[in-house]
Amino acid sequence: MVNFQAVLDNIADEVRPLTTQGKVADYIPMLARVPADKFGMAVATLDGGIYRVGDAEEHFSIQSISKVYTLTLALKAIGDALWERVGREPSGSAFNSLVQLESERGIPRNPLINAGAHVVADVLIGQGLDARAQLLDFVRRRSDDPSVGDDPEVAHSESLTGFRNRALANFLKSFGNLDHEVEAVLDFYFYQCSLTMSCADLARGFLFLANRGICPWTGEPVLTPSQAKRIGALMLTCGTYDAAGDFAYAVGIPAKSGVGGGIVGIIPNQLAVAVWSPALNAKGNSLAGTAALELFTTQTGMSVF
Amino acid sequence: MVNFQAVLDNIADEVRPLTTQGKVADYIPMLARVPADKFGMAVATLDGGIYRVGDAEEHFSIQSISKVYTLTLALKAIGDALWERVGREPSGSAFNSLVQLESERGIPRNPLINAGAHVVADVLIGQGLDARAQLLDFVRRRSDDPSVGDDPEVAHSESLTGFRNRALANFLKSFGNLDHEVEAVLDFYFYQCSLTMSCADLARGFLFLANRGICPWTGEPVLTPSQAKRIGALMLTCGTYDAAGDFAYAVGIPAKSGVGGGIVGIIPNQLAVAVWSPALNAKGNSLAGTAALELFTTQTGMSVF
Amino acid sequence: MVNFQAVLDNIADEVRPLTTQGKVADYIPMLARVPADKFGMAVATLDGGIYRVGDAEEHFSIQSISKVYTLTLALKAIGDALWERVGREPSGSAFNSLVQLESERGIPRNPLINAGAHVVADVLIGQGLDARAQLLDFVRRRSDDPSVGDDPEVAHSESLTGFRNRALANFLKSFGNLDHEVEAVLDFYFYQCSLTMSCADLARGFLFLANRGICPWTGEPVLTPSQAKRIGALMLTCGTYDAAGDFAYAVGIPAKSGVGGGIVGIIPNQLAVAVWSPALNAKGNSLAGTAALELFTTQTGMSVF
Amino acid sequence: MVNFQAVLDNIADEVRPLTTQGKVADYIPMLARVPADKFGMAVATLDGGIYRVGDAEEHFSIQSISKVYTLTLALKAIGDALWERVGREPSGSAFNSLVQLESERGIPRNPLINAGAHVVADVLIGQGLDARAQLLDFVRRRSDDPSVGDDPEVAHSESLTGFRNRALANFLKSFGNLDHEVEAVLDFYFYQCSLTMSCADLARGFLFLANRGICPWTGEPVLTPSQAKRIGALMLTCGTYDAAGDFAYAVGIPAKSGVGGGIVGIIPNQLAVAVWSPALNAKGNSLAGTAALELFTTQTGMSVF
Repeated sequence: MVNFQAVLDNIADEVRPLTTQGKVADYIPMLARVPADKFGMAVATLDGGIYRVGDAEEHFSIQSISKVYTLTLALKAIGDALWERVGREPSGSAFNSLVQLESERGIPRNPLINAGAHVVADVLIGQGLDARAQLLDFVRRRSDDPSVGDDPEVAHSESLTGFRNRALANFLKSFGNLDHEVEAVLDFYFYQCSLTMSCADLARGFLFLANRGICPWTGEPVLTPSQAKRIGALMLTCGTYDAAGDFAYAVGIPAKSGVGGGIVGIIPNQLAVAVWSPALNAKGNSLAGTAALELFTTQTGMSVF
Repeated sequence: MVNFQAVLDNIADEVRPLTTQGKVADYIPMLARVPADKFGMAVATLDGGIYRVGDAEEHFSIQSISKVYTLTLALKAIGDALWERVGREPSGSAFNSLVQLESERGIPRNPLINAGAHVVADVLIGQGLDARAQLLDFVRRRSDDPSVGDDPEVAHSESLTGFRNRALANFLKSFGNLDHEVEAVLDFYFYQCSLTMSCADLARGFLFLANRGICPWTGEPVLTPSQAKRIGALMLTCGTYDAAGDFAYAVGIPAKSGVGGGIVGIIPNQLAVAVWSPALNAKGNSLAGTAALELFTTQTGMSVF
Repeated sequence: MVNFQAVLDNIADEVRPLTTQGKVADYIPMLARVPADKFGMAVATLDGGIYRVGDAEEHFSIQSISKVYTLTLALKAIGDALWERVGREPSGSAFNSLVQLESERGIPRNPLINAGAHVVADVLIGQGLDARAQLLDFVRRRSDDPSVGDDPEVAHSESLTGFRNRALANFLKSFGNLDHEVEAVLDFYFYQCSLTMSCADLARGFLFLANRGICPWTGEPVLTPSQAKRIGALMLTCGTYDAAGDFAYAVGIPAKSGVGGGIVGIIPNQLAVAVWSPALNAKGNSLAGTAALELFTTQTGMSVF
Repeated sequence: MVNFQAVLDNIADEVRPLTTQGKVADYIPMLARVPADKFGMAVATLDGGIYRVGDAEEHFSIQSISKVYTLTLALKAIGDALWERVGREPSGSAFNSLVQLESERGIPRNPLINAGAHVVADVLIGQGLDARAQLLDFVRRRSDDPSVGDDPEVAHSESLTGFRNRALANFLKSFGNLDHEVEAVLDFYFYQCSLTMSCADLARGFLFLANRGICPWTGEPVLTPSQAKRIGALMLTCGTYDAAGDFAYAVGIPAKSGVGGGIVGIIPNQLAVAVWSPALNAKGNSLAGTAALELFTTQTGMSVF
């Protein structure tokens, strides 16, 4: 039986010196001003355990991690019909590249790159409900935490500088792969990126993916086992920008990172683990966070490989 | 001495059967409803002659032909500084491709493709005046025709469906190659495309480019001889979308086409010639218009080659 | 305890009808003439068990599966220095695309696409020994089977029609990323693709990768645990051409396929499993073989996800 | 009446200081050792005049200029059928790029880039004669100079280092756009690049293109007027690598350059002009040669624009 608390304490000691080696995202002021020396980590196990170290209860901007939540909702809503509008393979190019989109006629490579997330957003706002409220409610229920929030200032700031995202969404629209107005899609997209959660929220919030799609404490079937497996495969091959290969090697579990410095991973049938350290490595993943997860899979022997 | 009127009459007879062989642009309703059997042609000579055939005095949407006017104004305004923001070489790919823009870090290949025209528009709206009014006034003076107008319905419709242009402009903005708001740039761009002129207007209106930059009837130096030569070179190598090579072969003069079915060409030191026939060939140039210009250069012996 | 023999028997019954649904590779005659109804499968476990069904002892052309063996030898020979010449990330484009190679200045995305394998081959023939003999000896020892052979007719035929590979290798050479003659590199490359092995050979032959780099029956350290993990990560993210995402989802284990219809996968710390069915799906992986592996991970519950 | 001798003398004085500002091609030793201070220029007029300055009678390696001769022979041999295998438009990317070739499925953009010249070479060696001898004889007759030669050492050296060309040719072959063996095509291609001629030879040798396809002194119809015009259009839009736009502006006549420092241009119905200065500018065209041609068209007033 692994002593998760001891593992987390140990990891925190080891990686803290790394927290200042990367570079905090600075393309919007709200991210730039987050102190680089923040570090939190949490583990949630299927049997109900929750373990924390450092700033594990502090909210931060989850950014691209939200793509897993919206993908989940889109699969719930329309199932495999999603795959007619977005692919399921690694992209092999920058997360915000337009080149692939042109050569593949407006079909994004996967739902975890920006263009793919726009298509997913377009699906969600087409479901006839208040998509934002639905998403927030879903994330809160997954985390079992009503304090999960959103940061309008972040969303607004992302929107003001989001020229590349706006280019991608208009490009999708020109290929007929967005049903709704570009600005409506982007509004939702920037909203989802602005969600604020803690490591503990994220660890709990991803447990259903480690549990064949079923929420462990309510028994609610969030996704089918097959859909949960699909998301796991996508996280493993496409969850960490253009470093999926290195990440699979170093960490060896399905994970999704965000430019706010968060990373959350799952070990199927066992647990979910989340880490936060704002400074990023050259590929855009949390530098200390990646190191922490690598230590975690090494010390617990839970890597896939 | 060429009898231009006879040449035009002859050409009109010959190409009229071709006017219905192409396809009228239908991406916006205002263009789609233009009758395919319209045909007009006009020649303006440096010595003040003007020759017309068919619908040579009917206004039509000049669309991309406007790029030559805005390029002229941008060169007047900032001179060679323009070339720091846009290239001067053929693009070898679709006029609205985003691929080249990504690999060349936001510098469009030339000012006659859409992205290049956006940069030019950005320059013009940065000159501190009412850019629209300035453009309209300039085009009217070049044509010596105060009836040159604009079509707000066309501009509005282009804007509503202009996703690819919006993608391009946002992409430029993401590389820092637009100083102004994307929508301000696009508003101006869609405005310039909506200008309505006749063949006679265009023939007169391009005479300064055939006259080393000087307006023949006022003597006003519009551009330096070197700038006029530069625009001629750009028209020859980049003026007819992805058919510049075929056009240079078939017609052999610097020319610029528009999706409204207009084409205007210049024969340096002699004349400017404009033609209008709404149905386009596969490359997006007026089918009968291209044939008419080919006949014109053949029958007058004025081709470059 | 899984009854592997029962699982294999069951799978064979279930997938045999699929063997004729794909398309046998026909770019060279020797592959084209292999009967589509061949089907074999074998499992080798770390504790010495070996289980077989169908044509599990029949030799076939392993083709791209050989890339894992040569990568292993290259890592043994020069270690991490290999990563200065080849990347470790999914490619997101066709296995034989030249586009990525141009934009990344001659550095292939990973060692499991053709260009990457050429660089690996270049490393091996630079080790001062008879690279072919060394490879054959290595593969025989890994499989514990001296009957592993090569098929000169296949190698010759591949060479005669290998224009795309020759283009890739010359392209690499033009970037300075091949030390040896292009033809020497290709000779070795076509040789490695022509190796002939059975499913049982492959299952035994990949066991060291499931055993942290150590040959289970001799205790010989073939690779370090870290290197074995690296290869596993590469197989999972890049082992099945442009279907790595779908394969990871459907099968969920590190695997490498070949155009001869073979696929071999590993389940770390447990076993290796190989399957052969010549007819391929649209992505170039064995159609029935993929289905068989999917059943295997489902029925044994051994998938990663 | 222009005094061509005075113009040439004047140009030589003016551009000599520029001859050492560029960089002599050094990818093969035979080109690298050519003294940078060589400068020659020659004009041949349709009425039989020939004017020279500097090293106008010294042979140099014509390199890519040969593409115009082989294109001429291919058009004579198969006429417009050539355009099924190669395009006629500017490429907008490097002369030896493979990217365009992949996206356009093996059809080179035009016959003046390397891949296009390979297709042309393939056509010529399929004509059932000794293609090399036929080419040499043709070039000698065009120049009226039996001393036009070839340099086997250059051809051999180009072949030894011609990895990019070998990649292109194999790539073409993989798309089925070469009928003959890659090495046979490349042998011919490297041979054509190794032809050695003087400026006077080139000026005389291109006169037929300025004379509607007819050799001025024998009256022999080398090409139809239409074919000559086609070649002129290709030279104007594609003759000077990725500087066609700038060259058209600065010089304003159809021209073809080679990496040996030669450039030859035509002024239809009047003359052909050749220049040689080995040091190249950043785009690969002779630096002083470009300046010399610019002065020539400026001082004679013979530019197109």
